[in-house]
Amino acid sequence: MDPIYNFSAGPAVLPKVVLQQARDEMLDWHGSGMSVMEMSHRGDEFMSIVATLENDLRELLTIPQNYKVLFLQGGASSQFAMVPMNLLGEKNKADYINTGQWSQKAINEAKRYCAVNVAASSEDAGFTYAPTLDQWQLDPAAAYVHYTSNETIGGIEFNWIPETNTPAPLVADMSSNLLSRPLDITRFGLIYAGAQKNLGPAGLTLVIIREDLLAAPLAGTPTLFNYQAHAKNHSMLNTPPTYAMYITGLVLSWLKQMGGLTHIEKVNITKANLLYNYLDSTDFYHCPVVKSDRSRMNIPFTLKDSALDRTFLQQATANGLIQLKGHRSVGGMRASIYNAMPIEGVAKLVEFMKAFANQNA
Amino acid sequence: MDPIYNFSAGPAVLPKVVLQQARDEMLDWHGSGMSVMEMSHRGDEFMSIVATLENDLRELLTIPQNYKVLFLQGGASSQFAMVPMNLLGEKNKADYINTGQWSQKAINEAKRYCAVNVAASSEDAGFTYAPTLDQWQLDPAAAYVHYTSNETIGGIEFNWIPETNTPAPLVADMSSNLLSRPLDITRFGLIYAGAQKNLGPAGLTLVIIREDLLAAPLAGTPTLFNYQAHAKNHSMLNTPPTYAMYITGLVLSWLKQMGGLTHIEKVNITKANLLYNYLDSTDFYHCPVVKSDRSRMNIPFTLKDSALDRTFLQQATANGLIQLKGHRSVGGMRASIYNAMPIEGVAKLVEFMKAFANQNA
Repeated sequence: MDPIYNFSAGPAVLPKVVLQQARDEMLDWHGSGMSVMEMSHRGDEFMSIVATLENDLRELLTIPQNYKVLFLQGGASSQFAMVPMNLLGEKNKADYINTGQWSQKAINEAKRYCAVNVAASSEDAGFTYAPTLDQWQLDPAAAYVHYTSNETIGGIEFNWIPETNTPAPLVADMSSNLLSRPLDITRFGLIYAGAQKNLGPAGLTLVIIREDLLAAPLAGTPTLFNYQAHAKNHSMLNTPPTYAMYITGLVLSWLKQMGGLTHIEKVNITKANLLYNYLDSTDFYHCPVVKSDRSRMNIPFTLKDSALDRTFLQQATANGLIQLKGHRSVGGMRASIYNAMPIEGVAKLVEFMKAFANQNA
Repeated sequence: MDPIYNFSAGPAVLPKVVLQQARDEMLDWHGSGMSVMEMSHRGDEFMSIVATLENDLRELLTIPQNYKVLFLQGGASSQFAMVPMNLLGEKNKADYINTGQWSQKAINEAKRYCAVNVAASSEDAGFTYAPTLDQWQLDPAAAYVHYTSNETIGGIEFNWIPETNTPAPLVADMSSNLLSRPLDITRFGLIYAGAQKNLGPAGLTLVIIREDLLAAPLAGTPTLFNYQAHAKNHSMLNTPPTYAMYITGLVLSWLKQMGGLTHIEKVNITKANLLYNYLDSTDFYHCPVVKSDRSRMNIPFTLKDSALDRTFLQQATANGLIQLKGHRSVGGMRASIYNAMPIEGVAKLVEFMKAFANQNA
């Protein structure tokens, strides 16, 4: 059977070797006689899995010792509330940059806890660009500055880290581009990411937080939404999502073997260029995002004639190119090409798109 | 290799056939070319997995149509806050029954949102019994009545459903005994359970809630802690823990094939009796729980001479009987014998315990 290439935006494709190892270890992890799913989260076996997971993450991202790594549940959507609940402190304002649907969700949830200053927005152009720093109108009273480093739906990515020059810590939702490139963690106060893009299966949420930001949350914050409580308990405040952590550990191990973030960034640039260069060479397809702010991870595009959308998707699926339908809110197509998408998958997609354009021009 | 018998209190043993199927389907679920972990949660494939999961759960537990089933994250510990945040409404009191550590955790979290009336407690006897209904001092102003149907740590189980005769809905933490026996759902307003005992892997939390209890939560409740929002979005408010749901679906399918809850209850009674009968026949070991309230799922016991604890655990492990160490808060031993623990495992444990007692008497 020809391989399937899965362009889902998340949960998304995982490295084949990771799935093979998970399959081989399913009934017996390292001679323990147990599946990882059956292990007590406080037992020696699972503690060794967590230790390797955290070490590999710290190594890949060069996470300094004054940052805590938390393995949580609830997805990025839970973080939309946890961030204000934990970082506001005595303040009642926060800065948000609005670059699309995920920013907006974060903003809407934050508004329930504080006054949100939308310091910059690309709504004026249908969220097709990332506002440059000179456009940001930051509030000096803000407790933090939040932005979405990659908009999974709109396909906008910040190719730069904002230098805000304010004491307010920088907070980033990196759900869909964390681990896709090297990153200077020291520029951030807090980074969070749902796992189901570049890290592993859905159900695990990663938080990287600078220790000095661990403080008492707002009154009424559920204990399970308290970063400080999670940090104090080494992410074992209650039973963590053990199997998702194990798979993420396998993914990180694969990433290290591949050559780490410097290597994967090169691969990701090559893959993205392959698709963008073709999109820019034809008027049969169109990518709405300005060139400087295009995501390497999520590439939305439309067909000149949207009446062909359905045929395109049918034929793509028949060719083993699946999950290309764009998000219901924007229509068209979207190719998500995370770390685990092989270059062959992108090449095959471009080849198919060319043939489809020729047949339907 | 001799089989390992895993007595972990959770995450816990899973049916071998479930793990085998998960292994076989790891790289390609039903010819889709995808692992379940790689599937979009809104795609046809995963939606079919969810539909089967919910149908099987409704069938096994005979869940009436006026109850919603929610597949959430965050564990029972998140429910400790979600229950008061969602069920208090205009009221500011709730009744709780205190039968041990998990009850106490629920009480402590609820106190952050309302006045807690501890309507009954077995703390006076070190949590070795379940207070009978005539001991319950319910508050007529309570928004709900909460109890823990099985104390995983203390090994106390309610073998009866409280008939409170108040309009306040009955709420139960059934994390460690849901699906171990038939249950009359109509007696409850809300039932919740972390999955990692009888249902599946850690990371999935099940909530069964009567529709009329879906109402606006307290101000400041995170959206992801809002039952109504989850119900409205059919547990797809954000990406659910897809792989944990898939494994739980396999477990439910296995349970149906085994003969459902009527059958598994018989097996569970047989297994529990095997161990309790032996414990009661010797003074080398001791089970502290009163006979009428002993858990079929979690069986704590001590050795007459605690100096032998370490040797007992070492020799048990060498015999393939693992994770028997009692919870750090109570010491001694604990054998958790959930649905997936085969009777052979309990028989082997009893045989080992007899031999150990003979050697060390």
